[in-house]
Amino acid sequence: MKTLIIAAHPDIAHSRVNKNWLNAAKKDGNFVIHEIYKEYPNWQIDVKEEQELLEKFECVVFEFPLYWYSYPPLLKKYFDDVFAYGWAYGSKGKALNGKKFTLAVSVGDDEHEYSKDGHIGFSIEEVVTPFKSAVNFVGAKLLPSFFAFGFSIDPSDELVENSTKEYMKFLRDLSFS
Amino acid sequence: MKTLIIAAHPDIAHSRVNKNWLNAAKKDGNFVIHEIYKEYPNWQIDVKEEQELLEKFECVVFEFPLYWYSYPPLLKKYFDDVFAYGWAYGSKGKALNGKKFTLAVSVGDDEHEYSKDGHIGFSIEEVVTPFKSAVNFVGAKLLPSFFAFGFSIDPSDELVENSTKEYMKFLRDLSFS
Repeated sequence: MKTLIIAAHPDIAHSRVNKNWLNAAKKDGNFVIHEIYKEYPNWQIDVKEEQELLEKFECVVFEFPLYWYSYPPLLKKYFDDVFAYGWAYGSKGKALNGKKFTLAVSVGDDEHEYSKDGHIGFSIEEVVTPFKSAVNFVGAKLLPSFFAFGFSIDPSDELVENSTKEYMKFLRDLSFS
Repeated sequence: MKTLIIAAHPDIAHSRVNKNWLNAAKKDGNFVIHEIYKEYPNWQIDVKEEQELLEKFECVVFEFPLYWYSYPPLLKKYFDDVFAYGWAYGSKGKALNGKKFTLAVSVGDDEHEYSKDGHIGFSIEEVVTPFKSAVNFVGAKLLPSFFAFGFSIDPSDELVENSTKEYMKFLRDLSFS
């Protein structure tokens, strides 16, 4: 059973980290990658098509760069449009029950800023509470997420390469979850 | 000094709660209301204009209905576009330092779902961690937020009216913060 990666980068052409991650996942061949910023340049999400895609997969990775401690806006619109009443929730909405959801997130700041004493004041696990809340509400299972830190200003090739290796290990380990 | 309300409802024409709140604030006359979904139907935010608007106010309320435990997507885009490097952060980015920020949020579910034992599994204060992180990062001051619960299915007139009274009290109390 392949894993679905819903990728949301507002400017993947100029990305280094997320572009490398996605290229590695494509090369591997065991992952289906769905890039919503490429799919919906006009922001009009095809809800039925997206729901049918999610229904085909047991495990889904939501992948994005963290901007202002949250999703890129089109990914937020994706949740609002696709996770609809009667499908994702409500008495007849069970489509996401039991699915495995996780995050793969590139983060600008260093990890130590994500603490009570850092500039941000909250851990990365606290920052992604909205995602965890949604997972709980639709009855899905939350798998441990992949977070890669320190990509704010022109990351070194070494940092990008190392994170790509760790990202691929994370993806491959999902099949054992 | 007037307070600025940045309001983000994807469909204010069909809103009951947020429309009532904004109408009451307009009637009061002591608040400047800026509805970004009306301002930017094409989602192309005028960054300079928005920055100049924020610079004029000491206290800013971000007001929206909570969908999937987060901002409406255009409000997320607002943060990504307007809170720019060199203006909101970075060595020369001090525009938001010391400003007072808060939230006014209408919530579908009842408050008891926002707990460890509820369907959501997190408190509303945990859910808005991304906003708190952004406030910390730009050096603004977080004022206590206004949350109104239980508006998921056709709320009663009484519930809407009571929440509007509480909302106006919240807005008026901001001037003493």
